[in-house]
Amino acid sequence: MSKKPSTIPAPYCDRVSRVRAEMNRRKLDGYLIQNRMDQYWLTGFTGEDGYVLVTSRQVVLLTDGRFDEAAAVECPWARKVLRKVRTPDKTAAEINKYKVQRIGFDPDHLTVGEFTGLRKALKPATFTASSELVLGMRLCKDASEIAAITAAIRVSERAFKKVERWVKPGMTEREIGAKLLYEMQRLGAQDASFPSIVACGANASLPHYEPGDGVVKKNEGILIDWGVRMNWYVSDLTRMIYPGSIPREIAKIHAIVKESHDKAIAFVKPGVTAHEVDNVARRVIDKAGYGKTFQHATGHGIGLDVHEAPRIGKGTNTKLEAGMVITIEPGIYLPGKGGVRLEDDVLVTETGCEVLSTLPC
Amino acid sequence: MSKKPSTIPAPYCDRVSRVRAEMNRRKLDGYLIQNRMDQYWLTGFTGEDGYVLVTSRQVVLLTDGRFDEAAAVECPWARKVLRKVRTPDKTAAEINKYKVQRIGFDPDHLTVGEFTGLRKALKPATFTASSELVLGMRLCKDASEIAAITAAIRVSERAFKKVERWVKPGMTEREIGAKLLYEMQRLGAQDASFPSIVACGANASLPHYEPGDGVVKKNEGILIDWGVRMNWYVSDLTRMIYPGSIPREIAKIHAIVKESHDKAIAFVKPGVTAHEVDNVARRVIDKAGYGKTFQHATGHGIGLDVHEAPRIGKGTNTKLEAGMVITIEPGIYLPGKGGVRLEDDVLVTETGCEVLSTLPC
Repeated sequence: MSKKPSTIPAPYCDRVSRVRAEMNRRKLDGYLIQNRMDQYWLTGFTGEDGYVLVTSRQVVLLTDGRFDEAAAVECPWARKVLRKVRTPDKTAAEINKYKVQRIGFDPDHLTVGEFTGLRKALKPATFTASSELVLGMRLCKDASEIAAITAAIRVSERAFKKVERWVKPGMTEREIGAKLLYEMQRLGAQDASFPSIVACGANASLPHYEPGDGVVKKNEGILIDWGVRMNWYVSDLTRMIYPGSIPREIAKIHAIVKESHDKAIAFVKPGVTAHEVDNVARRVIDKAGYGKTFQHATGHGIGLDVHEAPRIGKGTNTKLEAGMVITIEPGIYLPGKGGVRLEDDVLVTETGCEVLSTLPC
Repeated sequence: MSKKPSTIPAPYCDRVSRVRAEMNRRKLDGYLIQNRMDQYWLTGFTGEDGYVLVTSRQVVLLTDGRFDEAAAVECPWARKVLRKVRTPDKTAAEINKYKVQRIGFDPDHLTVGEFTGLRKALKPATFTASSELVLGMRLCKDASEIAAITAAIRVSERAFKKVERWVKPGMTEREIGAKLLYEMQRLGAQDASFPSIVACGANASLPHYEPGDGVVKKNEGILIDWGVRMNWYVSDLTRMIYPGSIPREIAKIHAIVKESHDKAIAFVKPGVTAHEVDNVARRVIDKAGYGKTFQHATGHGIGLDVHEAPRIGKGTNTKLEAGMVITIEPGIYLPGKGGVRLEDDVLVTETGCEVLSTLPC
């Protein structure tokens, strides 16, 4: 137990207000957050353990001694509770002190084991699955979030340029992936935002390839899909490197993918649906006769997670709004021959969009 | 849906039999595995999506098209089901075909959202929380697993030696962490088994420090806690590097930690409890007057996860058994001055133990 809660600083003050308003709307007097990125968004806390409990009057951080210092530095304004034992029983005993009776939680980020223990120990309080209460608010990014994503993109790009200049025929995918991560981290990345894909030649036809023993050859393409996590926000980009001349068929599909990518980006603006953006990208590839090879979605939101809503794909009726940051990443894959994917990170603005990434493709 | 199940090869045949025997004992006719490392242990499948369903007659892999090829290569003997949509409804529809009525699952690896959807769609089948059914079997490693852990340790050690020779005053923690990961990956690691801790000087007093802008100084210690994941198995080691002379107090606590580490390892053998091992390590540090600074457990199991049972700490009454691989990692931490932790990976053998790691400390 620590000192009294103090005034909540920006941007958390506004975020907490929005969560409370949504709790009111859903008739909840407590909201329990287990998703670490939701916790970070709402409080700035980065510790790996615990819950954030939002009540109508308080924001409580239920963590443990390992994260005492992090909690004090990152959100001194929240009420801090350090549990010695992290069982649902002990967590529930702390929650009980706040007399919440109608508790909301995100069912996609709470295990059955935790939930069963908490519910039993907190009887007669009721639990209401409130999917995506915070996730929904994370869809549109504010200026500080856009700055953080842009910073992650810049580091990705600088690392990529180093690798692009350094890469030579004979190197392995594994070696390139290791070098790329090394350069990202030297430039200040916390980590890669996901394990890089480095796929040489025919390996590039597998959209979810992992770097292996494939070797760079002079007249084959290399597909690199990589991202940085920095200050918790992520980037996600894909580029091709061609050491030497580009095989004719690969050059052809590269041009089609580029057209698909450019047209989709030109179409991005507030009010259009994610599905329509996907359609624009897909139509170009369909018309060129490669539609069957483009089996994944055109893109997805990025932010604190590398895959956030909205999915830019079939069936997503979400309308784009200013502040969303999405990837646009069409691709064509030719089994046994290779593949091309081009991916940029795009901010939806009031009037259209801004491509945050700057590497030529 | 794919071809018929064929004979199950080693080591999976024996593992599936053990799971079925345990299912029988618990009166379950189906066991649903969501934990990816449990799935890997039981089937060799490495895909990122889906469930493994074990019935009395079949092993079913419920995944999606992205992992079609991985499933075919890694466990051709399992029945493969590729779901186009990954909702609990569609998953349940597939599970329903196997007519299971009493389904066991691990409550610590299934979200409330998934569970609620599955249970509703699978009525009147009952669900029984069967904690650690597979995890319990993973406690003792077979020869192939010990070989995989040893291989991961060797790569960790080679990467560390490269960094140890290369490190110089003026370098930052971040730079050292990046170099260490680069060398691990070049040597064949899939990834680090966790984000490395690189802590210079006084930073080493924080057991959960993350590499930052701390700088190597000539007469200060550097604490490095790192590990490799290779063929899915992990290593976990901690060593100190001293560029220059060792400060007197650090040298003193290093000697105490070394004694604690050595005595604990000497004590490891089948039949002793995890708690007793912790006691042996702790007593040395207590006697030297530093007991209060050693706030974490003496160690933990490693295998497919970097923190597995048994926890080598207070209150763990698990008896050590041949085949367990545990870390021994006592430490002393002096706020504002520095810290020392020494960690090795130790295999419990029939007659005592074998230290799998080989770096001097």
